[in-house]
Amino acid sequence: MAIKIVKNAAGRSVPLEINGQKVIPFQGVGKHRPEGRKYSPPIPTCSDYPDDGNKVVGSLEEALRKCGIRDGMTISTHHHLRDGDLVSNKIFEIASEMGIKDLVWFPSASFPCNDPIIKYLDDGTINRIEGSMNGPLGRYVSDGKMKGTAVLRSHGGRVQAIQDGEVKIDIAVLAAPTADSYGNAKGTGGKSACGVIGYAKADSMYATKVIVVTDNLIDLPCFPMEIEGNYVDYVVVVDKIGIPEKIVSGTTQITKSPDRLLIADLTAAFLEKSGILKDGVTMQAGAGGTSLAIAVFVDEILKKKGWKSKFGFGGSTKYMVKMLEEGQMGFILDAQAFDLDAVKSVENNPNHIPFPVFNAYNYHSKGNLTSMMDIMILGATEVDLNFNGNVVTHSDGYLLHGIGGWQNCLHARNVILPIPLFRDRIPVIVDEVTTLCGPGELIDVIITERGIAINPLRTDLIDSVKGSGLPIKTLKELKDEAEKICGKPQKPLFDEEIVAAIKWVDGTVIDVVRKIKQ
Amino acid sequence: MAIKIVKNAAGRSVPLEINGQKVIPFQGVGKHRPEGRKYSPPIPTCSDYPDDGNKVVGSLEEALRKCGIRDGMTISTHHHLRDGDLVSNKIFEIASEMGIKDLVWFPSASFPCNDPIIKYLDDGTINRIEGSMNGPLGRYVSDGKMKGTAVLRSHGGRVQAIQDGEVKIDIAVLAAPTADSYGNAKGTGGKSACGVIGYAKADSMYATKVIVVTDNLIDLPCFPMEIEGNYVDYVVVVDKIGIPEKIVSGTTQITKSPDRLLIADLTAAFLEKSGILKDGVTMQAGAGGTSLAIAVFVDEILKKKGWKSKFGFGGSTKYMVKMLEEGQMGFILDAQAFDLDAVKSVENNPNHIPFPVFNAYNYHSKGNLTSMMDIMILGATEVDLNFNGNVVTHSDGYLLHGIGGWQNCLHARNVILPIPLFRDRIPVIVDEVTTLCGPGELIDVIITERGIAINPLRTDLIDSVKGSGLPIKTLKELKDEAEKICGKPQKPLFDEEIVAAIKWVDGTVIDVVRKIKQ
Repeated sequence: MAIKIVKNAAGRSVPLEINGQKVIPFQGVGKHRPEGRKYSPPIPTCSDYPDDGNKVVGSLEEALRKCGIRDGMTISTHHHLRDGDLVSNKIFEIASEMGIKDLVWFPSASFPCNDPIIKYLDDGTINRIEGSMNGPLGRYVSDGKMKGTAVLRSHGGRVQAIQDGEVKIDIAVLAAPTADSYGNAKGTGGKSACGVIGYAKADSMYATKVIVVTDNLIDLPCFPMEIEGNYVDYVVVVDKIGIPEKIVSGTTQITKSPDRLLIADLTAAFLEKSGILKDGVTMQAGAGGTSLAIAVFVDEILKKKGWKSKFGFGGSTKYMVKMLEEGQMGFILDAQAFDLDAVKSVENNPNHIPFPVFNAYNYHSKGNLTSMMDIMILGATEVDLNFNGNVVTHSDGYLLHGIGGWQNCLHARNVILPIPLFRDRIPVIVDEVTTLCGPGELIDVIITERGIAINPLRTDLIDSVKGSGLPIKTLKELKDEAEKICGKPQKPLFDEEIVAAIKWVDGTVIDVVRKIKQ
Repeated sequence: MAIKIVKNAAGRSVPLEINGQKVIPFQGVGKHRPEGRKYSPPIPTCSDYPDDGNKVVGSLEEALRKCGIRDGMTISTHHHLRDGDLVSNKIFEIASEMGIKDLVWFPSASFPCNDPIIKYLDDGTINRIEGSMNGPLGRYVSDGKMKGTAVLRSHGGRVQAIQDGEVKIDIAVLAAPTADSYGNAKGTGGKSACGVIGYAKADSMYATKVIVVTDNLIDLPCFPMEIEGNYVDYVVVVDKIGIPEKIVSGTTQITKSPDRLLIADLTAAFLEKSGILKDGVTMQAGAGGTSLAIAVFVDEILKKKGWKSKFGFGGSTKYMVKMLEEGQMGFILDAQAFDLDAVKSVENNPNHIPFPVFNAYNYHSKGNLTSMMDIMILGATEVDLNFNGNVVTHSDGYLLHGIGGWQNCLHARNVILPIPLFRDRIPVIVDEVTTLCGPGELIDVIITERGIAINPLRTDLIDSVKGSGLPIKTLKELKDEAEKICGKPQKPLFDEEIVAAIKWVDGTVIDVVRKIKQ
């Protein structure tokens, strides 16, 4: 029986069922009201756990067997080890050797180092990935090769799905740079330090079974307890959980491209002239080259004006750490540390605070930190004339990126997308985004090297920069300029088959990705 | 229809139903296996909460009304403000004025300052208290005056009951010495600092509605976030949440009684000679005068031997803080700060760590910190010849104390009860405890001013002190000595009516308290 397809509130055609589970089409921003209660794992009892608190077992395989790994289970991992992760692939290598089939891999993100997972998708060990897929994994999905349908969620949407029971984690395998034998674990210390491991908090609380894997076992108590031992079943000590130089890049680099620097400069000018940059400002930017340049420019303006930032929300970098140390920023609340300076800072500076996305991004919560942020600097692969944004597919239709915290961050007060007008001679501003990830009503300003477009809904911002001399244009004007240079891009050709679903922050389906026509 | 009474595994007659809810009789230590899943509150959505994170409302009454307070609801509070608490009584004063009836008050403990609650039990605002009742409140219960049946739980049992859904909290009203407008809250700072507020963590996570009441509203982010704003519905700012000098005693005093000092001295000698005091020892003692003396004596032995304590579990006092500061103790994990030195320490010393009972005491967890503690120093109102302990009733049958963490702490490796042979000429060692709170199999050593009795189950301990010169006796011998001095105590006379149930750490009913014959 064919699955029914309907048009959701954004006008996108989405199915009512994915991987055999009923799903709800996107209802509009803030419109879907969740029903029912949070998910809850089985009640454990201390009588099943060792009195001395020592949960160390001999190997990851032993731990997986003790957790009762079997066909069809959902296995979760976090991505704090980034491209240096040595744990995630190992799980499926073991499962494959055991002959286990149809697992669901539920990572908080995946990296190029996870490309070997393709082998376990091919051999049937893994049915599907619910999480971000970059590069080869995304291409595999877009080519229709994955057995199940991929489900992409934002970082906050992942927590929402765990909390609400949309995804029931059977076994969470949580790599930890430091842990004690009881399972208390943290992101600092040891040879594989990644700073914080807050993405794993929801997994530890809601999974039926929890395995902590560490290469740095210390005496109880491991503190701070980002993962709390009272949620942990087994601890596995291995030689190496990660490749240090791939876990944190030694340096995060400011862009050297003149165009990108121009975009950063325009962005800083816009923030200043519009008045949204102010004393006590709260701001979040990423770790990309343009974002870093913007952070540096903003820091200069703050200093010039004698202003301070109340706090910054990380992904932290050495530039944020510098602001913290110089007193330009009061606190860093940190969900992930991008470079070595950031890792050191979170370990040593009491005002650099591990802050799980659980607290910041979960839309099915009693409020979110992101909606309180003044300025949010984000990227996009495409933006369309209605300010809609795409971050997962390229204009050629291939699924090549994850959502990250992007959708969650759209709830900030001022959402600014500094993006180049074109990439590899492909215009970034299009008539209609290939894949809808974020509704235009939440995206306030697009800043390109050839001008700034303000969402017509933000009449306050439009007024604020009148007479400022900033190159304010319409999106249509910017799009026309790009097309004059690059020509109108070709639309990708898709098959009917749905290969991935894009969830909105509230668990509804905002769009799907279809198989590329071969 | 009469409620069926059965004998539980400890031979105590207990009902199969309390306050209209089915209950399970005690099955033996570690024997009851919980079924089902943890409790889960309704799924909230950010769309119901202010984007700017400001949840401040005008008054506690307004907050209670917004939470939909109505007849029969369960209202929870914590006891970190101890005898200086100005918030708990206020809730029921408001409810009484609103004409609300049959509330359940679910405090983590009550204090003499809560005696005015009797008025709201009398006028029908409160149906019953599920929590500790000291002094007049306990007497009220023992006299059969409370409408519902009291339910007493240990601190860990309270968390277990919340987690497992035995108690469903409708509204948690959480006093916070410091909070921000989003509801992040902590125990340090401001004029009503109490150090930590970890007892409130479970309430915040599982209650349907959560109100934070503070007299020290600070800018976001309030850190550390002992209560996380994403669980909080409303914030109320009041003039005073507590009376500082009653929240923390300025000084915690070592006993000056020669008999108690002798008990402390014997205890320290036993710990040393039995070999259970060792380098790296982990120990928990209370804040009573005898316990403090023991802590000081133990500190001296550690120093003499060149040993250190790995960590101590608080209730913290200035004596523990001194050990921490002098390097005699590695960490303090702290569930409650008893004096000003402890409050200051938890605020300033990174190795003095707020540690919710949630992580330490909940038996329906994947392990408990208490089972890893080497030495646990506890008290009792009565101990019987089978080493069973009572902490809630006196020998006159009156319910005069709460359980506190006592039952949870019984799971430590070596449970030592230093107790006087008699109090007010009433022997403490009896044929059979008036109320069974802890099974004798978990109580290892009774230390009195006239000798030490070791549980026959602990042949290792008996062997360890052979030839040590310590005054080892049987419990029978100690009991006979006491009765020779004081005479045999009269048994209290009870009615049939059950006025209170005593829960074991796993939620089963270990005993009941009956109405005193008038």
